Amino acid sequence: MENIVQIAETFSELQGEICRQIENADGKEKFSSDKWEKEIGNGLTRVIQKGNVIEKGAVNFSFVRGKFSDRMENILGEKANNYAATGISSILHSGNPWVPTIHLNVRYFALDNKVSWFGGGIDLTPSIIVPEEAAWFHRNIKDICDRFHPGFYPDFKKWADDYYFLPHRNETRGIGGIFFDRLKPCEKYEFETLMGFVVDQAKAYPLIYAELMKNNTKPYTEKEKRWQALRRGRYVEFNLVNDRGTKFGLESNGNTESILVSLPATAAWEYDFKAEPGSFEEKTMQLLKKEIDWIGFQAK
Amino acid sequence: MENIVQIAETFSELQGEICRQIENADGKEKFSSDKWEKEIGNGLTRVIQKGNVIEKGAVNFSFVRGKFSDRMENILGEKANNYAATGISSILHSGNPWVPTIHLNVRYFALDNKVSWFGGGIDLTPSIIVPEEAAWFHRNIKDICDRFHPGFYPDFKKWADDYYFLPHRNETRGIGGIFFDRLKPCEKYEFETLMGFVVDQAKAYPLIYAELMKNNTKPYTEKEKRWQALRRGRYVEFNLVNDRGTKFGLESNGNTESILVSLPATAAWEYDFKAEPGSFEEKTMQLLKKEIDWIGFQAK
Repeated sequence: MENIVQIAETFSELQGEICRQIENADGKEKFSSDKWEKEIGNGLTRVIQKGNVIEKGAVNFSFVRGKFSDRMENILGEKANNYAATGISSILHSGNPWVPTIHLNVRYFALDNKVSWFGGGIDLTPSIIVPEEAAWFHRNIKDICDRFHPGFYPDFKKWADDYYFLPHRNETRGIGGIFFDRLKPCEKYEFETLMGFVVDQAKAYPLIYAELMKNNTKPYTEKEKRWQALRRGRYVEFNLVNDRGTKFGLESNGNTESILVSLPATAAWEYDFKAEPGSFEEKTMQLLKKEIDWIGFQAK
Repeated sequence: MENIVQIAETFSELQGEICRQIENADGKEKFSSDKWEKEIGNGLTRVIQKGNVIEKGAVNFSFVRGKFSDRMENILGEKANNYAATGISSILHSGNPWVPTIHLNVRYFALDNKVSWFGGGIDLTPSIIVPEEAAWFHRNIKDICDRFHPGFYPDFKKWADDYYFLPHRNETRGIGGIFFDRLKPCEKYEFETLMGFVVDQAKAYPLIYAELMKNNTKPYTEKEKRWQALRRGRYVEFNLVNDRGTKFGLESNGNTESILVSLPATAAWEYDFKAEPGSFEEKTMQLLKKEIDWIGFQAK
């Protein structure tokens, strides 16, 4: 567990770097900084609101440690006395419906029995799916993965499809990306490989999003804005009903404002909304599915 | 279980009566009617949107039956082969922040081993709490309760305080009302008493709300409207994170659009909103607590 202090320092620096780059791309607002310290550990919640591009966004860092409880033992199937965990978690919501919502998480979890693992991923949730853009996003993510292991992209892309899914809607949250957990250093990949993998994700995150933020110059209609509000309603549903991290945070008496900063500034619900045949809404709905091969996607 | 068909008929008629009265009070929009039929049973979802007073509201009726599963046995601590259940569930959200959100549920659950019970209640969620109005609401609810049993109001008022509570916010959802469940006919109260109790709630519901809808003539500011949006965010949190009915409905593969019609048309989240000292927002926050004696409330 000793090296976790160093990993936490790296994550903390990456948090600052992400915020600097997003501030530059936004060009208007800066991230606030709320340090918190509890018995369990400490963190830094950084929030940007009412920016030029970003309507509401957060980049959170935390470093916690504690007793490895019976409940954790049961869930994780590991035996230990103490644990420590550190990570960055970020969600950025834009005002313009043509700029997607993006999410990053990188985390490291260590037990005092020498077992440790990485988890995280990046995924994208456009209100209106533009296939060329979705393919571009997945190619970027695949490039990061391929630098470390040829199996990462196919495995973790599938994992994201399964995780970012709303069973009660039979829809994916967005176009996915990658999701992984319990990724332990082993003969297949050493600690350094995995650390490099998560660091590269944290470094690529603001660069990828800065590109997507350029869509902010694109004009939009009332209809597109209303659709964005409905899609944000789904984002809220996923985070409050399905997301294990949010559930765990709320149940374990975490910092509610830091956990729920992931929710959009506004969201809407309309009873039984039906997309018109051939509309942009219907086209997006048809792409909120698992197992779409975005890498093999060919523009028509 | 034979009489449940008759109870379902009564509930179905009460649903129609509630809708008629709310339509009259709204004066603009009518409730739509969506019949649904599944293997499990049938229902009628009635929704009103963009009314003069009601921005979004629903009055749902359902009558379902099926095998009494092991899971239900464990949760309910009863042994039986089959169950049947019927009920009305309603939530009405207004556009004007001075008109509260109201909620009614009445339900009857019967097992084929002759065990059966009632559940339900009425509760109120104002965006801005006006103490005189809250006291008036509670007196109305107490009057209904007292007609049937002197213990109903104190017991079920406490139950509502405990149920309509967001632990992660340490706030009640609104000013409460009554909540009860597993209320079985017994020597203390016969079936007829309990049936009368829930019928009277369903009859009083539109009358009480028609009174509150009169607040719609009251002008409001941008600040009050924004506060309403934040309070609606809490309503969404409660329904998606804490409400057992919603959770059960979504997990048991229920009709998602009918279940989530309870969500407001719009909601908002702002990071770490702090009410200014002495503001109406702060005064409302101070009243979002359990164990407030609204009956003993004296206007200053």
